[in-house]
Formats: sequence, structure tokens, C-alpha cells
Amino acid sequence: MGSPGPTHNFAAGPATMPPEVLERARASLVDWRGLGHSLLEAPFTCDEFRALMDTTRNQIRTALALPDHYHILFFQGGASAQFSLIPLNLLPPHATAGYVETGHWSARAIEEGQRYGPALVVASSRDTGFDRIPPVSQWTLTEKIRYCHITPNETANGVQFQSDPDCGSIPLVADMTSEFLSRPIDFQHYGMIYAGTQKNLGPTGLVIAIIRDDLLGNARPETPTVFNYQLQLEQHNRINTPLMFAIYLTHLMLDWLETQGGVKAVHIRNRSQSQSVYRVIDEDDFYRCPAISEHRSIMNVCFGIKDAHLTQRFLAEASASGLANLAGHSHSGGLRASLYNAQPDLAVTALTSFMDDFRRRYG
Amino acid sequence: MGSPGPTHNFAAGPATMPPEVLERARASLVDWRGLGHSLLEAPFTCDEFRALMDTTRNQIRTALALPDHYHILFFQGGASAQFSLIPLNLLPPHATAGYVETGHWSARAIEEGQRYGPALVVASSRDTGFDRIPPVSQWTLTEKIRYCHITPNETANGVQFQSDPDCGSIPLVADMTSEFLSRPIDFQHYGMIYAGTQKNLGPTGLVIAIIRDDLLGNARPETPTVFNYQLQLEQHNRINTPLMFAIYLTHLMLDWLETQGGVKAVHIRNRSQSQSVYRVIDEDDFYRCPAISEHRSIMNVCFGIKDAHLTQRFLAEASASGLANLAGHSHSGGLRASLYNAQPDLAVTALTSFMDDFRRRYG
Repeated sequence: MGSPGPTHNFAAGPATMPPEVLERARASLVDWRGLGHSLLEAPFTCDEFRALMDTTRNQIRTALALPDHYHILFFQGGASAQFSLIPLNLLPPHATAGYVETGHWSARAIEEGQRYGPALVVASSRDTGFDRIPPVSQWTLTEKIRYCHITPNETANGVQFQSDPDCGSIPLVADMTSEFLSRPIDFQHYGMIYAGTQKNLGPTGLVIAIIRDDLLGNARPETPTVFNYQLQLEQHNRINTPLMFAIYLTHLMLDWLETQGGVKAVHIRNRSQSQSVYRVIDEDDFYRCPAISEHRSIMNVCFGIKDAHLTQRFLAEASASGLANLAGHSHSGGLRASLYNAQPDLAVTALTSFMDDFRRRYG
Repeated sequence: MGSPGPTHNFAAGPATMPPEVLERARASLVDWRGLGHSLLEAPFTCDEFRALMDTTRNQIRTALALPDHYHILFFQGGASAQFSLIPLNLLPPHATAGYVETGHWSARAIEEGQRYGPALVVASSRDTGFDRIPPVSQWTLTEKIRYCHITPNETANGVQFQSDPDCGSIPLVADMTSEFLSRPIDFQHYGMIYAGTQKNLGPTGLVIAIIRDDLLGNARPETPTVFNYQLQLEQHNRINTPLMFAIYLTHLMLDWLETQGGVKAVHIRNRSQSQSVYRVIDEDDFYRCPAISEHRSIMNVCFGIKDAHLTQRFLAEASASGLANLAGHSHSGGLRASLYNAQPDLAVTALTSFMDDFRRRYG
């Protein structure tokens, strides 16, 4: 068999990155900013790295038009660590946190959150197989809830909030890992937004946390100092050595985002790309999509083949055609095409052509 | 002024890395293991990355001749996070942990540790300016101590344990961040060893934790799941997305360590390099070393100039001569040359020549 041609990577995160970002990342492993050595060998206390942290925070603030009373912090441990660190920092002992359950990742947040106090599931789509987002009008919000946790995009089951929900005076805390910087955000509803960077920004382990001023300063005594939001803010996020290379990659991705026209422009492209895949799925009943059409994710198109026996064949032939990482999440099975900001249109066209062709041959 | 020639980097960590490791790291940002995309774009669930984690653990086990009843785990948050996570995982509420205070970093561990229970300082060299290691015969070890925490090498004040201390049945817990893999270890005395990788291995944020079997399974209920030693072990260290690039760099450094002859060989080189710098310092009283000669670090040579006014001039002229990052720790001041495994002999020769020359001109 000959060369399969270029590989298109549909992984759910870590995911495909722009070639120009990877090229700059490689260059940083030779000589970074004229220091005479690579970024990996630079002290985090050097002026150049201090400036990089400031620049990266400013880029995030500008890209999202973030109001001044929100702080941007970098943490380690990925979004999963935040499932514990959020109640440790924001929830007094015995106080109640609200959770909206919309799929695998919100369920993980609930499972961990309830170890730190009452976790009230104010809405869930479990009964319908996590195929939709429960409308905010039906959430059982009560005054005792300190904050309401949501997962606006669910990577494993492919549903997504279509707008920023309004919970009145209850601040939203949102795990935006898989949609961060893919769309504009209406911040007035949010107390905290956090995102692991391994989807739209690239590196694993890094978390960007955006926290409203008034929520800070309530950490429980057992909160590890390096994960204390207020203390890291006071000490300029430098209590411990930061994830230097990951922050640099994030900076490069934010540079690239600017060249693409910012979050509004990539949001249009993300919608358009996902629609072209959903269009192929909806054409007849060969493919199927578990999510209802109104709440489908524009980041992770989760789908299946009606004849489930064809799934492995689909994956094998796709792989042979240079379409990689199309298997669904291990908890959901089926197929999944992740279309984060850096997914090129060319990859999406290659995928839809392959899907059409596969149906023609096996339908 | 002309080109200063090659830069020699004496940073205390992140620190200099071998050119061949950086070259392999760059290559991984093009196409990693034939996947058709870079390592940064690979799912952590792929076979290639699972294999990498196993390989890296095996390399550590082999390099240190680690007995089977010790487990190797990767964590995020750096060694500073472990200052909290160790008591959360190993110390029952109200139980007492022992600490040996030998400088800036052991003091940081104590400060954080005492937030989780009684932290008994069993020995300290604070009264003599952290210029030595208190001998184990003088430690006030009592039966109530669950474990005794030590910092075998102190980067800020340049003292180092000269052997693995024997505390009888009390397990040692050692922050080996700045000496990990620089020497053989006599494991019989240790309950746990942990190391941030940004010194001898390169990447920031990653922690390698080596934990004796019998210490596991005692985590407090408030321990975040992703930082629970026992649960991460049970789930093959895959509860959350690992620091993939950092683990890969660690693997590359372990490959390189093998080519250097392993920890015994680099230990000889490390000793020899540090001795050649100490020899220049000890020649007369122009330079001075705060650590007593018996307990000096072979990793971080901390020194000063008798006439402290010359310190800034030394740093400026060194930098102009291509000798970078020789400033002491911000808490100690003075000068510091870090000589981790990857420091080439050439850099040390350049440093000692410069020091000789500087003395000749200003002494």
C-alpha cells in the first residue's frame, strides 16, 4: 500500500495544532528570545518569562473582552484537579454547590465535588442518555446554592450549551475546557471559568482559571498553598514554578487566534465545520447522532453507524485514508470528530468525503 | 562588542539540557513515532503514549536499582504541591511528621506541612545560617513521628547530605528535586522520594514520586482524587491527562543518562565539577563559601565575593563572557553555579577560568 498522504487528526484533546505554532514551538527549543539557550532551560524568574506570563494573560483578556473584576490565573493538574480545588477554594464547609449534569465530564465534576459538601444536581439529562442540555428555566435553583457548576461542552457525548445561561444572582462556575476561546462569552453570568488547555490551546496539564474578584479569599484551611486562588493571585502566580512551556504554547496559540480574526471569526468557522459533518450524518439513517439537533456540539461531533458492526471497519479505513483518531470516547463508544479551533477546513472536507464514500460502499 | 561566544547556563532549574535531547524534543514536534502528527497532538490514551509511560518508569527503576515494593508515579504541580500532598496522603489527622530544617526549601516544606498537623523540627541548622547538615545522631526522633522529611540538597544555600541517613524504623520522605538521578540511593531508609523534574531532568511542573508500598492507602478524605497516591496507582496514573511532553523529555533525559554511564558515572563527574569550583573559591579569601566544606552541595555551588560590592560586576562581566544565570537565590543573594547532570565540563572550565581572571583583576 502506498503513502496515505497527509494525516488529518480528529483527536479530542490533545488535538491538532497549526503548523506555524509548532514551528515557533520548535524554534523556542533552540534559542529563546536571544537568551543563548532554549526556553526549556530558562529560569522562570527571568524577565523574559515574567513578560510572557503578563502578555499571555493580556491576550486572554483581550480575546474574551474580559471585564477588569475577573482575574486570570494559571494552575497545574488539568481541569480534573479543579473538580476538587473549586470547592476547596469557593465552597465553605457544609455549604451547597449546584451542578448541571449533561454528560461524562459534568458527572465526573459532581462525583468529585460531593466529596467536599452537598452537591445538588439542579438539572440532569441522564434520563434521555445525555442527548440534550436541560433548559435553565427547569433548573431547581435554590437560594442555598453558592454557585452552579456547568460543563458547557461535553466532549464524550457531544452536546453543548447554545448560550450562556442566566441563573440570576447565583454565579456560574463553568468547565470550558473543550470550548474555551472557541466563541465569545457573556461574562455577567459567570463567577468562574476554567479550562484545561489541551483542546483549543494545545498543552496538557495547564489550567487557565478566570475568577470573579468577590469569590476569592474563602479557601478552606486544607487547600494546598500552590492551589489557593487568592494566594496565587497575591503572589503573581509565582508561588511555585509555572508550566513554562505550556504557557508559551498558549501564548503562541493566542497569537495564532489573532491572525484568524479572534473568537468571533473562529466561532463562525467552528459552526460551519460542524454543520457540514452533521449534514452528512443527517442525510439518511446510515449514520446517527445521539445528540438532539438543537444542542449538538460544534467542537465534538459524536456519531455512530446504524449498523454498529461497521464501526471498526470505518475506523480502520479512515485511518488508512489518513483520518486519525475518530474513535468515540471510551465511555460512549461510536465515533467522534473533534473540530477545535485549529482544525483546518481541508480536514473537514476530507472527513465528509470519506463519510459519503463509506456510506456509498456499505449503505 | 563582538559575539560573546557560546552561552554556558548555570541556572538552578530549569537548567541546561544536552543538545542531543533538545534535538530529539524538537523532532517530536514534527512527527512523533510515525503517528503523522506531533507528540503535542497525540491522545494520551494512544498505545504509543501508554508505552512511553511504562518505558519511562522502567528507566527510572533501572537507573536507581529501585526495589519492587516501591511504586513510581507521575504528578503535577511541582515539588511545592507535594509539601501539602504528602501529609494529605501519608499523615493521619493529628499525627506528627518530623522535619529536618537545612535551608530555604526544607523551611518551605515545614511551613506548608504544619498546616496539616504537628510538624516537629527534629533538627535544624538555622542557628548557623544553614551552613551544614545536622548529623542524624543528633536528631530528636521520637516514636510518635510517622515519617521524617528531609531535603537532601538545598539549592538556595548549597548544602547537601553526604549519605542517606538511617532513622531506624521511621521512614524518610525526601525532596530530591535538585539531586534526583545525580547519585545512587540507598532505598532501605526511604518511605518516599519525590522530585520536581526541572533540575536534572528538564521540564517544569512534573513530579516523580517513588513511594513504598506500605505507606499507601492512608489518604485523608479531602485529598483531591487526581493527587491521591493510592488511587492514581490503582488507575495506572491515568485518572487525569498526564504531562505528556514533560514525561517525554524525562524519557529523553533518561536515555541520555544511560549514554553517560548512569547515576554512578554522573555522580563522579558531578563531584569532580563541583570540586574544581570549590577549589577556586578556597584558594584565598577573595571568594567565600557559606557552607562548611564537609557538607557542600555538588549540585549548587553557592558562593560570594568577600567584597560584596563586586557581586553585580561579577554577574555583568560573567554574562558578557557568556556565563549566564550565576546570581544566587533571591533569598540568599550572592552567587551560585548550578552543576546538574547535564552541565558540560567545558562550562565548568569556562567558569573557573573566569573566576580566576576576575580575582586577578579585582583581588
